[in-house]
Amino acid sequence: MIHVTVWNEFRHEKQDETVHKIYPNGIHQAIADFLNPYNDISVSTATLNEPEHGLTEDVLNHTDVLIWWGHAAHGEVDDAVVERVHDHVLRGMGLIVLHSGHFSKIFKKLMGTSCSLRWREGDRERLWCVNPAHPIAAGVPNSIDLPQEEMYGEFFDIPAPDEVIYLGWFRGGEAFRSGCTFHRGYGKIFYFQPGHEEYPIYHDSRIQTIITNAVRWAYSPVKLAEITCPHVSAPEDTMK
Amino acid sequence: MIHVTVWNEFRHEKQDETVHKIYPNGIHQAIADFLNPYNDISVSTATLNEPEHGLTEDVLNHTDVLIWWGHAAHGEVDDAVVERVHDHVLRGMGLIVLHSGHFSKIFKKLMGTSCSLRWREGDRERLWCVNPAHPIAAGVPNSIDLPQEEMYGEFFDIPAPDEVIYLGWFRGGEAFRSGCTFHRGYGKIFYFQPGHEEYPIYHDSRIQTIITNAVRWAYSPVKLAEITCPHVSAPEDTMK
Amino acid sequence: MIHVTVWNEFRHEKQDETVHKIYPNGIHQAIADFLNPYNDISVSTATLNEPEHGLTEDVLNHTDVLIWWGHAAHGEVDDAVVERVHDHVLRGMGLIVLHSGHFSKIFKKLMGTSCSLRWREGDRERLWCVNPAHPIAAGVPNSIDLPQEEMYGEFFDIPAPDEVIYLGWFRGGEAFRSGCTFHRGYGKIFYFQPGHEEYPIYHDSRIQTIITNAVRWAYSPVKLAEITCPHVSAPEDTMK
Amino acid sequence: MIHVTVWNEFRHEKQDETVHKIYPNGIHQAIADFLNPYNDISVSTATLNEPEHGLTEDVLNHTDVLIWWGHAAHGEVDDAVVERVHDHVLRGMGLIVLHSGHFSKIFKKLMGTSCSLRWREGDRERLWCVNPAHPIAAGVPNSIDLPQEEMYGEFFDIPAPDEVIYLGWFRGGEAFRSGCTFHRGYGKIFYFQPGHEEYPIYHDSRIQTIITNAVRWAYSPVKLAEITCPHVSAPEDTMK
Repeated sequence: MIHVTVWNEFRHEKQDETVHKIYPNGIHQAIADFLNPYNDISVSTATLNEPEHGLTEDVLNHTDVLIWWGHAAHGEVDDAVVERVHDHVLRGMGLIVLHSGHFSKIFKKLMGTSCSLRWREGDRERLWCVNPAHPIAAGVPNSIDLPQEEMYGEFFDIPAPDEVIYLGWFRGGEAFRSGCTFHRGYGKIFYFQPGHEEYPIYHDSRIQTIITNAVRWAYSPVKLAEITCPHVSAPEDTMK
Repeated sequence: MIHVTVWNEFRHEKQDETVHKIYPNGIHQAIADFLNPYNDISVSTATLNEPEHGLTEDVLNHTDVLIWWGHAAHGEVDDAVVERVHDHVLRGMGLIVLHSGHFSKIFKKLMGTSCSLRWREGDRERLWCVNPAHPIAAGVPNSIDLPQEEMYGEFFDIPAPDEVIYLGWFRGGEAFRSGCTFHRGYGKIFYFQPGHEEYPIYHDSRIQTIITNAVRWAYSPVKLAEITCPHVSAPEDTMK
Repeated sequence: MIHVTVWNEFRHEKQDETVHKIYPNGIHQAIADFLNPYNDISVSTATLNEPEHGLTEDVLNHTDVLIWWGHAAHGEVDDAVVERVHDHVLRGMGLIVLHSGHFSKIFKKLMGTSCSLRWREGDRERLWCVNPAHPIAAGVPNSIDLPQEEMYGEFFDIPAPDEVIYLGWFRGGEAFRSGCTFHRGYGKIFYFQPGHEEYPIYHDSRIQTIITNAVRWAYSPVKLAEITCPHVSAPEDTMK
Repeated sequence: MIHVTVWNEFRHEKQDETVHKIYPNGIHQAIADFLNPYNDISVSTATLNEPEHGLTEDVLNHTDVLIWWGHAAHGEVDDAVVERVHDHVLRGMGLIVLHSGHFSKIFKKLMGTSCSLRWREGDRERLWCVNPAHPIAAGVPNSIDLPQEEMYGEFFDIPAPDEVIYLGWFRGGEAFRSGCTFHRGYGKIFYFQPGHEEYPIYHDSRIQTIITNAVRWAYSPVKLAEITCPHVSAPEDTMK
């Protein structure tokens, strides 16, 4: 069983009528809803306004994969919670960062870069798979049209990804590394660009399949109890 | 001094009036012309119709970086010459493969894959740099418009590149890994997608800068005399 | 169900008494024996002396993952069979290449390099995991001692692997990239260095776990019917 | 001209007689001394005890490549200085991190991981080149013996390097990714493991050549004035 916690800032849905109509119970609930039916996945949610943003040590201890959506309130996320999430990722918790989460504290901390990019609202996107045998791309067409999506363009200031799985093409003239994997410590990370709050991206079954695949990919059965930098002895016979 | 040999199939320029007007002396000569002024670069050319396609053992022994443009006549390239070029790349000769050279015997042999892709004539391209500190991108704008270019689209069946430097955006709806580096043995390889023969791509000063940068990047002062798989002894003291 | 075919040259076991004692039914059978008990894996074997080396089009059509052990008789493998296996890998068949298979025709064709290395018999190896969250490393100690193993040393002339999972340390003074993954087309490849025929490497439960993990990792549900390089149209509205 | 600043903690050399004898003017001066003779390199030094650790905004504005050696006093490095160095790296300053600098604040911040490892004093190392055509390896033997060196062993908790150039073999039984490159923003980073303060590693001409090569590799002519995340318009004609 893979224990997933879907974290959402949960502000736009309460403040903006357009967003509320698309995600009446929040983006987190929409994501939980499409993950829930799978027998191997168990889903919880957490949001910014909860104590400790819903990401207590206990919650993270029972989370195999954390999904993160944030946008307008990155600055309100407590640094202590960011440290805690960072520690859990390095010890083996998977992390899926969606869309504007590229600018979250936790993603920037894990990347070590500014994670800046170029952007524009009101564009159209087409995703192209450049790694079709990757498990994250299983059961999804090699090309996916998204009639409305916010444009994210290069240069995207991230480290060279371990794997680029999707390129995004935007009608306005940009290309983007839209689906990327990274290892950090024992944790696996997937950044996936689609998901502007004003469009029903997470209701698209193809996007749902990609995120579901990513959950299974990011799951690791191994978790470290703590990170150490140990002084070790050499086996007696090797140093003769 | 970097000794460059520019190899060209040199058929379209003699058979097609449009191409002839753009490259009256051949694509190879156009490339040689913009490389020649640099004091650190010495250029020769070679073409398909010459004996051994102009790529004798002696020529390759005096070539630091080979540039390759081919399209309609890949099948006419002699397998023995392909073996010879392959051997020189593994021993340290740089190789720059342009445009339709993706389907050349030498590129397919070095990649180990089919190098197939999707394509369409009559499109428009915009290059985006995703590795702006790479020496191949030095002195070039982060975005380059090419008003006319043939579309090459994903899935491009190549191994994961060591580095992706440029993404190509095409008006018709595709994105492509347009500038990629690979190491093979002691040789460095740069694949660069722009350069359809019916458009004056190699007269574009920005494209010229990228190719010139790639020549310097691909140059290696070290060349192996031969490739061996040696049986070796252990130092006496390590095996005690 | 993952259909595995274990291919073995099967010569040393018949010609050398030491090897025969370790693998009385051949290395292929020893590998099949530890894979067979798993409910999700179905195993067949094939050897060099069979017609078409046991790797007919029909066999490969029913193979999800091919395991390859060869050494003394690489040259006897028919080029047509190599082409066939190559085609199946690019269309989605997984491939696990063991030990001296580094010098097989199929591995060299997929890598595009010489695959040469330095070597020495009669050493001792210790494997170190450098990618502990990778599924191939699941359930295996981070360090594995192999009291007897042939030394393979750098420079190992392979393309930069997509992922390095194991480094090998050798008592005689060498380090080696002993466990490496590669994507080629739709196929996933794992090269794993341990397995000299004179030592009972494939009877070691830790080595068995790594190979079993690699089988599941290399499996792809997607297979291409054929590789094409299609001319495509642009959607009407994108080219306006 | 490449402007290099060599930063050193400069404590061991003043407190420990053994270290003082090897580096009477400090590790920073020893490194400056072997870089100084090159006409294309201009060297300054900076140390922990100077105001702002000698790394003022003005100093960094005039630094193309920063070399970093630290060990016992990582915790004394001011966070504001770490932020400043980080910003300069992302905007194009090269960074070479030596030996125990793996645990410096700046390296951990750029990697996004714990950078922990296993370690042991009093070992012997042999470096093996696994990327012999890389400019950092130019003019250096493929194998380098270091009769005395501190052991650093895997798992080294760093992101997958862009390139692994050297593996380290240790007599006591470990292998290590001893020479690794990373891109972060517009900056290039080289981590190089050798350099324990009690052994004369930086007096070794082969080590000096590697570091000198790395200075030239890490130099970038392009520096960003600031990092932005711009809202951009689409060209009029692309959005029709």
